Amino acid sequence: MADAAAPVFKRLAIIGHGLIGSSISRAVRRADGLIDHIAVADNDPTTRAASAALELADSVHDDPLAAATGADCVVLCTPVGTYGDLARALAPALAPGCIVTDVGSIKRIVSRDVAGHLPDGVHLIPGHPLAGTEKSGPEAGFAELFEGRYWILTPPEGADPEAVARLAKLWRGVGAIVEIMDEEYHDQVLALTSHLPHLISYTIVATAVDLEEHMKCDVIRFAASGFRDFTRLAGSNPVMWRDVFLNNSGAVLEMLQRFQEDLTYLQRAIRRGDGDTLENLFTRTREIRRGVIEAKQDVPPQPKDGDDDD
Amino acid sequence: MADAAAPVFKRLAIIGHGLIGSSISRAVRRADGLIDHIAVADNDPTTRAASAALELADSVHDDPLAAATGADCVVLCTPVGTYGDLARALAPALAPGCIVTDVGSIKRIVSRDVAGHLPDGVHLIPGHPLAGTEKSGPEAGFAELFEGRYWILTPPEGADPEAVARLAKLWRGVGAIVEIMDEEYHDQVLALTSHLPHLISYTIVATAVDLEEHMKCDVIRFAASGFRDFTRLAGSNPVMWRDVFLNNSGAVLEMLQRFQEDLTYLQRAIRRGDGDTLENLFTRTREIRRGVIEAKQDVPPQPKDGDDDD
Repeated sequence: MADAAAPVFKRLAIIGHGLIGSSISRAVRRADGLIDHIAVADNDPTTRAASAALELADSVHDDPLAAATGADCVVLCTPVGTYGDLARALAPALAPGCIVTDVGSIKRIVSRDVAGHLPDGVHLIPGHPLAGTEKSGPEAGFAELFEGRYWILTPPEGADPEAVARLAKLWRGVGAIVEIMDEEYHDQVLALTSHLPHLISYTIVATAVDLEEHMKCDVIRFAASGFRDFTRLAGSNPVMWRDVFLNNSGAVLEMLQRFQEDLTYLQRAIRRGDGDTLENLFTRTREIRRGVIEAKQDVPPQPKDGDDDD
Repeated sequence: MADAAAPVFKRLAIIGHGLIGSSISRAVRRADGLIDHIAVADNDPTTRAASAALELADSVHDDPLAAATGADCVVLCTPVGTYGDLARALAPALAPGCIVTDVGSIKRIVSRDVAGHLPDGVHLIPGHPLAGTEKSGPEAGFAELFEGRYWILTPPEGADPEAVARLAKLWRGVGAIVEIMDEEYHDQVLALTSHLPHLISYTIVATAVDLEEHMKCDVIRFAASGFRDFTRLAGSNPVMWRDVFLNNSGAVLEMLQRFQEDLTYLQRAIRRGDGDTLENLFTRTREIRRGVIEAKQDVPPQPKDGDDDD
């Protein structure tokens, strides 16, 4: 039997300390006994200074290699486009038994870009917490971000079950619901639930950017009528989302195609004044909303002090 | 000078007592001295029973004519498609000096369908509070719904300034920021800020409805990743939105065309792997989000007891 007092990992290296990375720091700190030492690396001196000032790490490094040295778990919290170079740079620090994971929005890229660089005996277990806000930076994180949220793991075939269980224990320790899933299926489902909504939000906000100045001003003033939610998604990290679309283009383009067909169907109904088609479709969509509410996924994550996530 | 103790209106008739109508009742009640008598009409007996049980009216009627008789202000809170018939039915009850207004999401339809039915001396001043949630029914309303929200009035040319000022005083009394606007311009701006976001939300949720069953189930479970906000808009009242699209089709189709062009531009960038185009656009959209936050329109309305709006 494992020692009840032993931490899940001795040294957790968090590479990239923005919204998600800093929220992991906070959540791990709050849940006693998960980790002995939190080592953080970030290439931005402002971020490092903020993380140190907020006391979100036991050690703060500019070099990811230094943070990962001696770590038994390394979490990549940088945009997915950085993974290949990062894995190559980290490799010399990774000892057998170490678990490498990530928090990126797409998962096939991890086995593609990371696996080949890892030394023998290092466990690669890609992951994705379905939690976040549109804000960036270590100040934006909060300890409750993962509470009651899904944290998907996509271990490759033949992954060590004990390593998977250990990583799952860590994320359960910060309040998440851990799910095991195939990486290909993950990227398909997320293309609809996350990537397409972000793409559409960026698009509709871009449509507003191109309006004449006085109308743009009124669009902002009157955003409360529906537009607001789109601006929130469209305020997300541009580099992170660029990398998502470039690296999950197949699934995104397929979902976009389905969406375009459905939109054209509604456009045609509006042009022809076909009220029955509109009302039928608007009624059928309510079942999905009910499902989301029943699954308790209808409320955005909030810090405990009750601040809004904006 | 007006008597400080005199109410803004003696008898306010609210025709249709769903989310908005019942929130007006609550807000008017809470702000002392705005109205002497609240008369409510609704054609649904369940709604009438709920409004009576919640004590949201001084009198509850099945016949709109009965509610409007003796009223010096009548507010239409039914789907915009009902306005023509309703105005014809109400006309015999409307005395000179009475103000007729509404809360509908489109405004040209009001002068088109209502004005011709009103007796001489009755003031038509269409209105639109930019506040709401996706819920329906009198139980869903709350007194704080209009606080800090815009309430647009679109008085026709030649409208009586005193009547406009009196109606504005009422809505300021429930916490709203009153704006005067041209009806045509209103319908254009709202086509982008409200109608297009709802249309797109209905579409993407409809796309999910048509997925294979197991994937649909996972889309619901993993909605927190972006999809959630769309399901909220797509849970709105189907009849109300059908009427909006049928009666503002020109402006909606024009904004939809612009949106489709912008979406095709991004689609092309994804297909070609053009990361610069994606990152540039994703960066430009942030200015709009900052504008929305500065205008303090970034937070959804909440009842005072802290319940979430879902």
